[in-house]
Amino acid sequence: MSGKERLYLFDTTLRDGQQTPGVDFSVDDKIAVAKLLDDFGFDYVEGGYPGANPTDTAFFAEKRTRNAGFVAFGMTKRAGVSASNDPGLALLLQAESDAVCFVAKSWDYHVRVALGCTNEENLEAIDASVTACVAAGKEAMVDCEHFFDGYKANPGYALACARTAFEAGSRWVVLCDTNGGTQPAEIRAIVAAVIAAGIPGDHLGIHAHDDTGQAVANSLAAVEAGVRQIQGTLNGIGERCGNANLITILPTLMLKPAYADRFETGITHDGLAGIAHLAHAFDELLNRAPDQQAPYVGGSAFATKAGIHASAVLKEPETYEHVPPETVGNTRRVMVSDQGGRSNFIAELKRRGIAVDKADPRLDTLIARVKEREAEGYAYEGADASFELLARRTLGHVPEFFRVDGFRCMVERRFDANGDLKTVSEAVVRVTVDGETLMSVAEGHGPVNALDIALRKDLGKYQVEISDLALADYKVRILNGGTAAITRVLIESHDSTGARWWTVGVSDNIIDASFQALMDSIVYKLLRNRDADEATEAAGVAV
Amino acid sequence: MSGKERLYLFDTTLRDGQQTPGVDFSVDDKIAVAKLLDDFGFDYVEGGYPGANPTDTAFFAEKRTRNAGFVAFGMTKRAGVSASNDPGLALLLQAESDAVCFVAKSWDYHVRVALGCTNEENLEAIDASVTACVAAGKEAMVDCEHFFDGYKANPGYALACARTAFEAGSRWVVLCDTNGGTQPAEIRAIVAAVIAAGIPGDHLGIHAHDDTGQAVANSLAAVEAGVRQIQGTLNGIGERCGNANLITILPTLMLKPAYADRFETGITHDGLAGIAHLAHAFDELLNRAPDQQAPYVGGSAFATKAGIHASAVLKEPETYEHVPPETVGNTRRVMVSDQGGRSNFIAELKRRGIAVDKADPRLDTLIARVKEREAEGYAYEGADASFELLARRTLGHVPEFFRVDGFRCMVERRFDANGDLKTVSEAVVRVTVDGETLMSVAEGHGPVNALDIALRKDLGKYQVEISDLALADYKVRILNGGTAAITRVLIESHDSTGARWWTVGVSDNIIDASFQALMDSIVYKLLRNRDADEATEAAGVAV
Repeated sequence: MSGKERLYLFDTTLRDGQQTPGVDFSVDDKIAVAKLLDDFGFDYVEGGYPGANPTDTAFFAEKRTRNAGFVAFGMTKRAGVSASNDPGLALLLQAESDAVCFVAKSWDYHVRVALGCTNEENLEAIDASVTACVAAGKEAMVDCEHFFDGYKANPGYALACARTAFEAGSRWVVLCDTNGGTQPAEIRAIVAAVIAAGIPGDHLGIHAHDDTGQAVANSLAAVEAGVRQIQGTLNGIGERCGNANLITILPTLMLKPAYADRFETGITHDGLAGIAHLAHAFDELLNRAPDQQAPYVGGSAFATKAGIHASAVLKEPETYEHVPPETVGNTRRVMVSDQGGRSNFIAELKRRGIAVDKADPRLDTLIARVKEREAEGYAYEGADASFELLARRTLGHVPEFFRVDGFRCMVERRFDANGDLKTVSEAVVRVTVDGETLMSVAEGHGPVNALDIALRKDLGKYQVEISDLALADYKVRILNGGTAAITRVLIESHDSTGARWWTVGVSDNIIDASFQALMDSIVYKLLRNRDADEATEAAGVAV
Repeated sequence: MSGKERLYLFDTTLRDGQQTPGVDFSVDDKIAVAKLLDDFGFDYVEGGYPGANPTDTAFFAEKRTRNAGFVAFGMTKRAGVSASNDPGLALLLQAESDAVCFVAKSWDYHVRVALGCTNEENLEAIDASVTACVAAGKEAMVDCEHFFDGYKANPGYALACARTAFEAGSRWVVLCDTNGGTQPAEIRAIVAAVIAAGIPGDHLGIHAHDDTGQAVANSLAAVEAGVRQIQGTLNGIGERCGNANLITILPTLMLKPAYADRFETGITHDGLAGIAHLAHAFDELLNRAPDQQAPYVGGSAFATKAGIHASAVLKEPETYEHVPPETVGNTRRVMVSDQGGRSNFIAELKRRGIAVDKADPRLDTLIARVKEREAEGYAYEGADASFELLARRTLGHVPEFFRVDGFRCMVERRFDANGDLKTVSEAVVRVTVDGETLMSVAEGHGPVNALDIALRKDLGKYQVEISDLALADYKVRILNGGTAAITRVLIESHDSTGARWWTVGVSDNIIDASFQALMDSIVYKLLRNRDADEATEAAGVAV
């Protein structure tokens, strides 16, 4: 018995998160996300609204979690119809879920205008829905929609809605800041009023939105006031400005004494170390650019830029970092940038296995080259492998494995023999390997794909070595706007060892920029192979 | 006399915001940003650290604001050197600023390890620096670095630092949550302790960071506790997870009764309506993708997706919107998406001047087409003009002004006559206008630029009409990863009337995708010209 109170984490990524502009989960997407959430250890996974659309109905044909409570969301029964005669309610209760979360009006204005029934009829609908749910053997919860605005407009009625939900047998009564405009002090005061009205905090939940940038603070304020269930989404996705970000809230609950001393969740500290991975896996699934500045898990969350800090941070991190990065699965980054001092560079090079003496004059050359290129648009912070190549070329020697004498990319859109318009892309590459000139041609989905295939089609004696090289991702960023602007291309590559690396190219020509990044990727791969061979030899293992 | 207390807004975009990964302001950038801030009405603009780097030293060669206090930032004098003999301090005082903000250690650990002097020497440095600043006729302020952590470690010393700064004559003593880990309740308690120790709230400031996602909440909590200066940045830029976002804070202060009833700022309500423009102008200056979900100013901040809400919202917006969007210069968006009901579509079409009857069967066709294309990757939310073209083609008729029979884009990298490698891009386009086939060839910076120029080089009788068409922006997004993935291209165009519009193209071939977006832009321009002519005729004005 730890003596700590239990906090419950309720994820609504697949239900409220579905309202995010640009997000549309397929059934397969939902299955994958539910697994991520279940494996991570959230207490509840709200999967959607069975009956409202085909995807959700199909999703609830099976229970999709092993440990987390699987929750179906939907409206309370309609006024004027009995619980047993409401088809929407029936679909909810038939769904393969452990629990049902009913959304109920708790602002009298909405009862009148959106539902078109009386205040009493709404209370009866809440009571009947919860009763039916409990009778069906499922856990019942009620989202009191617009609760805080409803309380401000008519506190007696809002409380009546919440109390009705509780007394009918709800495990949780969730107070929702649906419009997102409530302030933390108001959250605290109103939650206190709800508890004073007879609903214990351990049956209360909070559902906050980020319309004033305080969804996290409002959730934590509600917990301070006695609430014990927190609703939110992964990476704060959601309608308008998003829902409360569970990725941001959980580490605070578990690592800050103000909360960690009083509360525990269903997640262990080992589990917490997987939260950066969870956040990134979710971004990848949605094909969303990760927020580099996200609290705890963002790529920059523990990155120091100013040279003034770097050496101090490495000595006693807790005086510069509010939590140790590894507790959330993140790492400290000492960033390469034109503000970085020599100690930054040396630390960064060391991190990549390149040892250089502080007094080495080639270090100044490298620093100058990096600053120059970053001013042109190269982003070495995101292109590890290109940075390493530049460093190795400046500080030492990188062999010229092969030379590209020229290339030509062509995209043509024309009528084919059937009179249909089609587009073809072709690339021709001329390389010299070991004094011999090789020419390759390839077709592709587009000019960059064609160039990539042609470039890796015949590199003579190196061909076998790069056979397991594959491209995983391709990012384009236009700097300075317009079609005549500077293009920055970042390419992610990987090979059969599972290693992944990023390379960068910059040009006013997108094909040129892509070509630079492709070249760096191939040369990096060839260098990696040689490093691996040397390490193997050094270890006395037969190659 | 309003009876309200005055809150002061201190912008550190150009100083602390400079630490943002990927941000590097030139002197011209700083001049432009300072003007934005000054015109908007912030009380203080912190411009940088004169003496620390050439850009900042040049920036402070002149006063860059007319109304806002222009602030130079820098360290307190070094221990062991008198104020008059410290060259860094001299540079600060010589800068053309109204005020100097000294950063001072207030955590004894940092005094020992970072400064290498005694606690007493640090207090003396604070006192001497502030005294010298006041003697030089400038407003003095002190950022008490790591204040909240320092207070937790050694409350007596942290308070001594703050008190020394105040008693030496500082107009403002700013309490900084430098590591960003402090919780709102701790902010309130510690600010109360500072006030109890003798520094009045109207001389206190708060400087928060977003490492637990609560920079906004911490700033507001500090105000609740008595602080009257708030430091932050535009769009929350800054190191690691960013600084407190002034764009988010200001509307809350001015529109939420909890604050608006008690406080006033230097900004009027008319001025507040310009805040969305300020946020967007800053993103454009930095060439950063705007955060669509940013509170108050984001494109999605007042966007409803679910069909269920749309009709209700349009009737009584205050029951669904926490503040009226026009108060912050934003607009309500009823979004086009595959979750949109018919009422959403009709409202969206109406917004663009396209009237359609609810029962028109072509509306179903349009809805189906939009859903289909959005599943392929088209993003009509970001491409107004392409949506409008699709709607007009589906609901009515759009003339085929010209037909593109084919095009060819080529990028070639080869050695020129001097033996240097260069890249050339060329495009050939075949169009038919009025039964006549025209061929054009053009060179460009890259394949898309070449195609754009060739496409608009000779459109026969339409050539004059599109002469004022220009491309303003070009965005590429790769969906699903890898070089064989789907590419979405968004192009922003404008013409001499100042109108701006976005068009979209989707293909696995980036040239094809760009071509679609370019075509839509030209056709849209030709339609606009005709709409304008009709409107002019209808108005009875001679064309």
